Formats: sequence, structure tokens, C-alpha cells
Amino acid sequence: MAEEAPAWVTELRLVDHHCHSVVGGELDAAAFGALLTEAHLPTVRAPAVAEPGAPEGIDPFDSKLGLAVRRECAPLLDLPRHAPAADYLARRAELGAEEAARRLFAASGTELLFVDHGYRGEELLDLDALAALAHAPVAEVVRLEAVAEDLAARGVSAEAYPNALAGEIARRAETAVACKSILAYRYGFDVAPTRPAPAEVALAAERWLGSPRGGRHSAVPGAEGRHAAAVAQGRHAAGVADAHTDPDGRGALPLTDPVLLRHALWCGVDAGLPLQIHTGFGDSDEDLHRANPALLTAFCRATQDTGTPIVLLHCYPYHREAAWLAQVFRHVYFDVSLASSYAGHRASELLAEALELAPFGKLLYASDAFGLPELYLIAARGFRRSLAEVLGGWIASGEATEEDARRVAGMLAAGNARRLYRV
Amino acid sequence: MAEEAPAWVTELRLVDHHCHSVVGGELDAAAFGALLTEAHLPTVRAPAVAEPGAPEGIDPFDSKLGLAVRRECAPLLDLPRHAPAADYLARRAELGAEEAARRLFAASGTELLFVDHGYRGEELLDLDALAALAHAPVAEVVRLEAVAEDLAARGVSAEAYPNALAGEIARRAETAVACKSILAYRYGFDVAPTRPAPAEVALAAERWLGSPRGGRHSAVPGAEGRHAAAVAQGRHAAGVADAHTDPDGRGALPLTDPVLLRHALWCGVDAGLPLQIHTGFGDSDEDLHRANPALLTAFCRATQDTGTPIVLLHCYPYHREAAWLAQVFRHVYFDVSLASSYAGHRASELLAEALELAPFGKLLYASDAFGLPELYLIAARGFRRSLAEVLGGWIASGEATEEDARRVAGMLAAGNARRLYRV
Amino acid sequence: MAEEAPAWVTELRLVDHHCHSVVGGELDAAAFGALLTEAHLPTVRAPAVAEPGAPEGIDPFDSKLGLAVRRECAPLLDLPRHAPAADYLARRAELGAEEAARRLFAASGTELLFVDHGYRGEELLDLDALAALAHAPVAEVVRLEAVAEDLAARGVSAEAYPNALAGEIARRAETAVACKSILAYRYGFDVAPTRPAPAEVALAAERWLGSPRGGRHSAVPGAEGRHAAAVAQGRHAAGVADAHTDPDGRGALPLTDPVLLRHALWCGVDAGLPLQIHTGFGDSDEDLHRANPALLTAFCRATQDTGTPIVLLHCYPYHREAAWLAQVFRHVYFDVSLASSYAGHRASELLAEALELAPFGKLLYASDAFGLPELYLIAARGFRRSLAEVLGGWIASGEATEEDARRVAGMLAAGNARRLYRV
Repeated sequence: MAEEAPAWVTELRLVDHHCHSVVGGELDAAAFGALLTEAHLPTVRAPAVAEPGAPEGIDPFDSKLGLAVRRECAPLLDLPRHAPAADYLARRAELGAEEAARRLFAASGTELLFVDHGYRGEELLDLDALAALAHAPVAEVVRLEAVAEDLAARGVSAEAYPNALAGEIARRAETAVACKSILAYRYGFDVAPTRPAPAEVALAAERWLGSPRGGRHSAVPGAEGRHAAAVAQGRHAAGVADAHTDPDGRGALPLTDPVLLRHALWCGVDAGLPLQIHTGFGDSDEDLHRANPALLTAFCRATQDTGTPIVLLHCYPYHREAAWLAQVFRHVYFDVSLASSYAGHRASELLAEALELAPFGKLLYASDAFGLPELYLIAARGFRRSLAEVLGGWIASGEATEEDARRVAGMLAAGNARRLYRV
Repeated sequence: MAEEAPAWVTELRLVDHHCHSVVGGELDAAAFGALLTEAHLPTVRAPAVAEPGAPEGIDPFDSKLGLAVRRECAPLLDLPRHAPAADYLARRAELGAEEAARRLFAASGTELLFVDHGYRGEELLDLDALAALAHAPVAEVVRLEAVAEDLAARGVSAEAYPNALAGEIARRAETAVACKSILAYRYGFDVAPTRPAPAEVALAAERWLGSPRGGRHSAVPGAEGRHAAAVAQGRHAAGVADAHTDPDGRGALPLTDPVLLRHALWCGVDAGLPLQIHTGFGDSDEDLHRANPALLTAFCRATQDTGTPIVLLHCYPYHREAAWLAQVFRHVYFDVSLASSYAGHRASELLAEALELAPFGKLLYASDAFGLPELYLIAARGFRRSLAEVLGGWIASGEATEEDARRVAGMLAAGNARRLYRV
Repeated sequence: MAEEAPAWVTELRLVDHHCHSVVGGELDAAAFGALLTEAHLPTVRAPAVAEPGAPEGIDPFDSKLGLAVRRECAPLLDLPRHAPAADYLARRAELGAEEAARRLFAASGTELLFVDHGYRGEELLDLDALAALAHAPVAEVVRLEAVAEDLAARGVSAEAYPNALAGEIARRAETAVACKSILAYRYGFDVAPTRPAPAEVALAAERWLGSPRGGRHSAVPGAEGRHAAAVAQGRHAAGVADAHTDPDGRGALPLTDPVLLRHALWCGVDAGLPLQIHTGFGDSDEDLHRANPALLTAFCRATQDTGTPIVLLHCYPYHREAAWLAQVFRHVYFDVSLASSYAGHRASELLAEALELAPFGKLLYASDAFGLPELYLIAARGFRRSLAEVLGGWIASGEATEEDARRVAGMLAAGNARRLYRV
């Protein structure tokens, strides 16, 4: 199917409105495998000893995503389609990670990348290096909670914090295309939808930053959420220094207070750029049902006259609920990224479900790729295949003309993102 | 596919067990477009100036529903299938709305319409005019909250209200086929499932009607829910008269108190007619997740021995949960209306999902059409196409015989509604 | 499709990791029909008089499951495929239930059955009789709440209860393959995810067992959940003896206290065997949305380092959420049993949805059959058909090689269960 996709699909250039950067350098099998799963614990092949929680090891390639690496990426590394995982990893090492990445990015047909570099950024290539590797311009997405934690690490006082955060986000937004919230990871969407009162924020900031050690803490590198936060808090409580992340022996200071999270979110609303919100599919730091975008209905109601578009990321398995939000609120947009990469050929079903209610101008393409250049290629291939299958199906069944289908394909691939982000 | 549907599908006459009436008179492009979406704000084509929340206008025809108008309706107005939207609107104006409506209704093959006229009824044709246009008998569905608000507008006292509402609903039920609750719009399903105690109802009625201005307020015309209610309350608070809806300058009095909503709901149970409940897909006045029919499980348990059937309307994207309720409770029925119209050819997938758990005797056809005669036709065409695809698929795959498939088609199209509503 | 399934599917032997036993003896039409539905009230054909909640009777064969009996089972009883229900029941009676059961079990290709005998066990064949009928070894699943209720019925004191339950579960686990929780039926997943404190448990045990009559109560036979519990409590409150279930005239003592339910759950964790948890689709005793496995995220987080695998049963319509849990937690496994039997040919869609996120090593086969031998056959046939359609589709579309598809089929059918349960 992918091979037979019509030219109006294969020739589309993509705007990837949400992704991360890639790991620099070579990866061994365990590290590569760990980047093929949203599980926190390392998944290794056939471990010699039984481990807690896994009677035997489960091969990370035994998944739709693992099949996709062998199917989509192997030929670009001069191997047969469906080459065994071991052959793939050996050939990748032989070519070198950089050459492999260049080939994979080139084949993805991505012309523009919007990158959230606030998560484990120190483990990944910086944006310039990514742009060079991808041969495509890269624009930045401001991760609100990371900005807050940077401020805290730099010793901002509790009194200054509320305005300082607003100012810093506004400043960062000047050179960015979007802001992004990870409220789902840090708490959940079961918070008040409204802007918190200044007095509430002041109190919460005092709790967070007012303690003797508070303002001196370093930020949490790579704190995607509760898991990292718990690890960091554990280190803090134990007074343990972490040589890699915390060279000065200071504890970390993750932002998990719901009032401060709402404050950061509304600073994002005020920044005026499209506001991306992580929803649905993510790692085990979140409670999935508390990341259901439908829980943001009241927040969408509260922001509908602000002029700030809301962009729901990922959404799976709640993408039909996200599509409803995009249907009933003019300022709501969404994607079905990440799950679409994991789901293999089922990505077309996810696209079809998303388009049941979504106005065609509201759905965007994204890879949400992280770490592996393979994931940008797999996302792009899966997206093109889905367009060919779903929109091609419109034509075949007479649901729409070829002209309409082509036009909608262009909107989903790049046009909607260009209009929304004004790029 | 629609063209090739077998005669046992195309010849079926439909009972539309839940719809509204149509707008009388001509519509311009903006008004027509606004009736193709569940968004509140007008969606217009390519606006000259940017509007808050929408960097550029999004064409209301750029949706599955917009495609369906061009695909299904254009040929009935003597245009080619997939004619451009502008051509469609021009031809519709040329023919006149009434002639267009006659053609669309006739092609829908609907033999009986159950109409909820309690929502924006004053903007729509009355039931006699609708019956004449549709060449089909029309029966009434009593909208419980509208009856309560009518009583309030007529100055009922707080003391009299509880019994007066019960009496008025019972009276209205005598000439109706069903009652209907919009609890989902006015509050949500997170209420106690039980009949409220008389003392609670008395207190709540006193709060609602006992204030000096309370009993004199006019009802809210077209109050589908929170949005309209908020607008009305805003007017009330500001003491502003609305020339169209409130000629006497009196404020409006929407029913939003959860105790009174439960009281109205149980008056509906007592009326003995099938009790329709809006669930799932609707406009932005509701919180979608609080309209999940699964939240009504305890209410279904509480009503299972009353003799009153519960009929869950729309349900999407929670139609699998609704099907579960229909599976485990003998008195629960449901439909997948509204979303089926919006979803284009994906309506067949919704039907297939609904039939995973639903006993065949529990699923009904409805259009939930509102305003545009196009929506009755699109719903009917989509339903026939879905029957052809899903039940035709049973035959093709050997899941059922043609005789069984035909029989089930007849149950879904009309038989279940005739048995349930005793018509 | 089922007929054309490739040999690598039809020749697979299945491990049914969760089912119940079958009714011994002959069944009349009403009893047979009642076992084709998850509704509590008997569903009978064309009743002479109208019954509350059902304007007319709905034939239990008018469902996907009813079609499956006629399609899959009739030929094994020497009838034509799709034979009428009446013919099927007549032929079944003619052959005798035992011969019918032998034929149905043999055709299912099941090589190993894990049986929960704690629900209505007294109405069903014991495990030895089941093994003889099925010509397959049977292993036991320990139903935690039933063990607790047995202890209570035997007069355990409130002081002794906490340790006695832990000891009894550990003892029972020695000869079993798994423990199972029905927290969803008895309360819901909206409980604290943590092990309750000993003082809390002691207090709750005192409430449950400390009353004068407490320790003397007999257990509740067949108490799947709230419905049976309510019936039992009603009897208890009224001091009414139930000749069948309670020959001594003592009231019943269902376990419904959330603290004690959590205590029992954690005794299950401590037992070290894989811990099965009923989630999703079940009968009307549960609130479906409170049985959503996503609500167990925090519990999965709390148990991930205990060494006890968590196995989510049924899951529908929340199987995509269950697959997410299996994706992000190494120790979480799941199935889509029960709904897969009810859904007919749509079982393949459920399998495809489950495999969007699920690592291939985490999804298991089960029938969850109860009462009727037909249900084991229908589950097995549906599962094979789904493998042929979904994994065959991987091959046809080039998503995977035939070798990979075959290997994954073997994992789902038996390999994963053998590895997980160490059998």
C-alpha cells in the first residue's frame, strides 16, 4: 500500500508541528530498544535472569513499532525489507548513527520541524545540529514547566516568581512558534479551568520556593513528569547528589503544584502563540484517564475568546473526544501523533476516527518523534500511507472527488500548520 | 456503495425516532454554514479580518458533513454529484427553500417523525408545517426542561411547582410519544441516580422560583444548555431586555439546579412513555465526558422495574458504552444519531461498533436533524448505506443469512421504534 | 473467512487463561437464552404478557452471540450452518447436553483451561468433571473475594481476619495458577491504589465481622457483585431465609467494603501468582466506567516492583486503555475476552485495536465462557478467525512477514500464557 501510494501523497512535504530532537552518537541494542517503548524500565532481550514484573524478557521489536523499523527503515540502510532486528542494528552501527539519520530524515520528506527541547534536552542534539541533520528549518516550542523550573533553579524569589514566569515565557515566545503544557504529566486535567487568583499563586509560590533550600535547587533535567519528579524528590529527600544531572549536589525542584501549573498554563495563554497541550498517550508518569482531552472542555470554554488557539497533542485513545472539541470550539486543533507511529498500519484507522467529527482545517500532522531518527521516518511513512488509504478511500467510494481529497491531504500535511502557526 | 445498495435496504421506510423541525424561509451562506456545525460561533468563509481563536476562517463545507451535502443533496437539486458549495447554495436559492425541502424529504424515505420542538422552536416550522413538508405524520417528544421553564415563565409558585410539573408533563405526555431530558446540557450525569426527596425539591424550587423576580421571568427560548443559560443569566443579571426573546424585558429562567433537573427527569419516568436522554455528541454547552451514558448505569438500575424504557440518544463517542447498557438492562435502548450524519461514510463503522454488544432489538434509527432538510436526507442515506455495508457484510462473510440480515435491517429501520413507542 | 483460515491458525492449540465451568444437565430454551446475555432478568421469547421495562420480549438469539450459536455450533450438532434457534435447541436436547458439550469442546482446540470457580460454582460442574468433558487439564484461579467470604462464613473473628485471609489466599495459591479480583463488581476502581494500613483493615473487619450475627453468616453463593450483594443484604435486613442459598436461615455476608477489598487485592499481590483483575464488560452489577482499567494506573505504578504480574481481563470497551497499560508497565498483561465472543466477526476489530499499542508479548487469549459449552467454541472460533484476519492482513499488506505473523499468533494463542503463568 505504501509503495502504491499516489504521487499526490508521496510528493507532499510535511510540517511536523510537534517533535523532539535525536540522540547524538551510537546506541547499543538496549538503548535502541528502550527508545521503542513508552515504558520506563529497560526492556531487554531474553535476559539471563528473571526480573521483577516480567517473568521473561519481552523483545522490544515484538510490537507494531518494532515491525515498522524493520519494514520501513531497513531498506534505507541497504537491507531487505523486514530484515531481522539484529541485522538492522548491526548495519546501523556499521554505517554510523549520523549517516543513518541523514538517510532516514531525507526519506521522511519533512520540510519544517517544531521542536520541544525542554524534555531530556541535554541527552539530545541541539536544534542547530538537528536542523543540519534533517536538512530542514527547526523552530522552537516553549515548554512552560521547564521555563518555570529554570527560573526556580536560578534562584527566583517566591515574590518575584509569578511575574517573572509570565515575563520569561513572553520573552521566550518571541522567537518560538508555540508554547506547550505538560499539565497531564505533572498533575492531570482535573483542575479548575480558570486563571488562578494572584493570591493563590503567591501562596503556592511561597510553598514551592520559599523554603530555605528552595530557591537554590537546580532544575530537573528530563523531568517529563511524575516518575522523574519522584526520582528527583527521592534524591532531594535523601540529600543524594546525582553526578550526571546535579553536579552541585543540589536537589531538583519539579513543578507539580496544581495552582502553579495553572498559572504557567495561563502564562502560555497570555503569550498568544498556539498553546500545545500534551493529552492522551504518553508514558507511565501520567494517569491516562486524567489526560483525556475531554476534561479540558471547560478550559476550552474559558479560552475561546482569548485569541489563543489550543492544540491538543497525541490524544489517543481519546482522539474522538479531541475531534469533538475541534468540532465545537473554533480555536481548538489536534493531532493523533505518537500513537499513529506505534500503531503501524492501524494509523489509518486512527486518522479515519479523527476525521469523523473534525473539521478538515483542524487536524495536523506530527511525529512526536524522540531520540531515534527512525521515528520521524516511521511517522511520515505512516501518515502518507494513512492519507493514501483514508482519502484514497474517499475517492474510491465516491465520498469525495479526487480534487477534494488532494486538497484535504495538503491541509493535513502542512497547510493547517502553516495557517495556524503563521509560518 | 450507496448507489449499489440492495433493494431490501433502499426500499426500507424509516421511523425517525428523534429529530427537530426545519427553518422556514431562505438561508444565506453564513446561516446555512452555521447549521452544518455544532460550534456556537458563526463559521464563515475566508473572513476579511482575523478573528479571535481562528487565525483564518475555516470553510464549514470542509468537513464530512459538508462533503455529504454536495454528494447526497446536490443531485436532488439537479446538480452534479459533488457540485461546489457555492453552486449548491445558488441552486437552492433559485429553487426556493420549500421546493428544496420537499425534494430532500421525499428522497429520505422517512415515514414517521418524532419531533422535539422545545429547542429553538420559535425559529423553526411548527409540527403541522413540518408534517406537510415531509409528507409524513409527526409525533411530539416532550422536552422536560422546557415544560418546567414554561411553568416558571407562567408564574407558578415554588410551593405548587413540584406537583404542577408532574401534572403538566403527564398532561403533555397524553398526546406525545416520548419524553426527553437534556440533563447533560444543563448539568451532567454526575448526579444522584435516585428520585429526589420532596423536601429537597421544595427547597430547590424555593431557590429557583421564590425570589421576588423569579416567578415572573419568561422562559428561555432556545436554551439548549449552559451557553444559552449563561447568556440568559447574563441578561438577567444586567437587567437587559432582549427584544427578540424577551419582549417584556423580563429575565430568563433556565433550569440548571441538579435537584430540580432530577425531579424533572423522574417526572419523565413517571409519565410512562419511553424516556429519551441526550447523551454524548452535542454542542459546546456540555462537558462531553459528563454526558457519557455509562454514568447513567445507576439510574438504569434505579429505573429497571418502573416499566419506563430509557432511550439513550446520540451516545457518540460512547456508543459502545451505550450498547453495553442496552445489553445488560432490558429497558435500555439507544441510537447513534447525529454523529452518524457528521461522520460521512464512517457511519457504517459507528453502526458496526454499536452492534458489537447491542441486542438487535435495542438499536434505533434517528437523524437528530435540526434546521436543514438536508440533514434528514443525509442521515437517511447514511443509515441505508451503513445497513448495506454492515448487514451486507454479514451476508458476504457468512456471519448471517440474507434472511436474518433483512429482518434485522427492518428492526433497526422501523420495527424497534414501532414496538418500543407502540405506534 | 473462518473456513478459509490458514493451517497456521486452525492448527493452533489454545490456552484459555480465564474461564468458568459449564452447567451440568439439560437446559430449556429460557435457561439457554439467559446464558446468552449479560442481563440479569430472564429474557424470554415472545412473552404472552408485557413485562416491565420491555414492551415486548426480545429474542436472545437476536444478537451477534445468538447468530454465532447458529453459525458455529449448529454444524457440530449435525445441523446446517445458520439453523434456526428452535432447531438448534431441539437437536441439542436430542443429543443430550453432555454429548453436545463433548463435541463443542473438542472442536475448540483448547489444550489448557484456567478456571475461576468462585462464581455460582455450585450451579456448575466441578473442575474434574469439566476437565473430563473438555479432555484438557484444568487449573484453578483463586477468586479473592470468595475466599474472604468463605472465611467469614466459617466464623472467623474480626481480629483474626486480616492475617487469616492472607494465609488462606497464600495456601490456595499453592495449587493455583493465578488469583483474581472482582473489585470492579464490588465497588469500582476509584479506591486508593495503596495497601491499606493494618489499623484501617482492623476497623473495617470489625465493622464487617464484629456484629453479633456477622461471623455466623454464610457466604453468598453466586455473588458476582452488587446485584447479588443487594439481594443478599435485602434478605439479611429482612431476616428472610433463602431455601436454596441459605438453608440455615442465616443471612449472607458479601464483601463490599472498599478497605477490605483493597486488603484482599493486596493479599493477592503478595501471593505472587499473576493477579487477574476483572475490568470492563460485565453484567449490570458494575458501573462500567468505574471498571475502566485506566483507573488502575496508580495501582500498576504501586505494584510494578513487587514481582507480581497484573492481568487485566476483558477490558472492553476500554481495551485501548488496557493496551496502553501493557505498553507502559512491564508487568501488565491483558485480554479482550467476553466482548470478543459477543461481538461476532467484529472480534477481529477488537484484536486489531488491542494490538495498536500492546507489545505482542502482553496480549492473551481467553474465552471467559460461563455455563454453556457453546461459548468456549464460539470464543475459540472467533479468536482463530481474528488471527487469520488481523495477522493475515499484516502479511497481505506487507506489514509483517508470514514468519513473524505466525510467531505472533503462537504467542497470543498460548505462548504468552505459558510464559506468564509458567505452565
